[in-house]
Amino acid sequence: MSLKDFLAFDSLLSDRTRLAIMATLTSSEEPIDFNTLLEQLDLTKGNLSSHMRKLEDAKLIKVSKRFIDRKPKTTYVASTRGSLELKNYLTQIQNVIEKVDE
Amino acid sequence: MSLKDFLAFDSLLSDRTRLAIMATLTSSEEPIDFNTLLEQLDLTKGNLSSHMRKLEDAKLIKVSKRFIDRKPKTTYVASTRGSLELKNYLTQIQNVIEKVDE
Repeated sequence: MSLKDFLAFDSLLSDRTRLAIMATLTSSEEPIDFNTLLEQLDLTKGNLSSHMRKLEDAKLIKVSKRFIDRKPKTTYVASTRGSLELKNYLTQIQNVIEKVDE
Repeated sequence: MSLKDFLAFDSLLSDRTRLAIMATLTSSEEPIDFNTLLEQLDLTKGNLSSHMRKLEDAKLIKVSKRFIDRKPKTTYVASTRGSLELKNYLTQIQNVIEKVDE
């Protein structure tokens, strides 16, 4: 893949924050809730919400809302499409790294 | 390095276009002129100019203006600082990739 192709490839994950969110979700064996993501990535609520909405709209994550101890709790997992998109994106970055290392 | 550190690390190269420009410059053994970069990365003149200015201001590239056959020609190379910044940035991305692969 050329660097031109890398630039032409339009991915939601070329945003660094969304890349980190997807990396966190796919690395976790369990669903992750909003506050854990906030803490792990040190983001503001508004910033994280906006990214999660974009990822949900693009069907890269699955959102589940449940009540635990009568309190609502929203958790997130990477969707199959999301895991695939992340893998594709990282493969592309890997190609860039190899070009530089040559 | 944690994903939090990855997000906190502020780099001009977290922009994908600038990453591709720096990858092109460091992979080349010779200085590259503006039109070659334009072609190789398929960017518009305005877009490329603006990125080159930011990279120059941050001293990540060195710009040289010469006359060849009486025509002005501007060429670019990655500076030592630029090559280092690229290497650092790619190491960080590599860490993210390894986290996901675990």
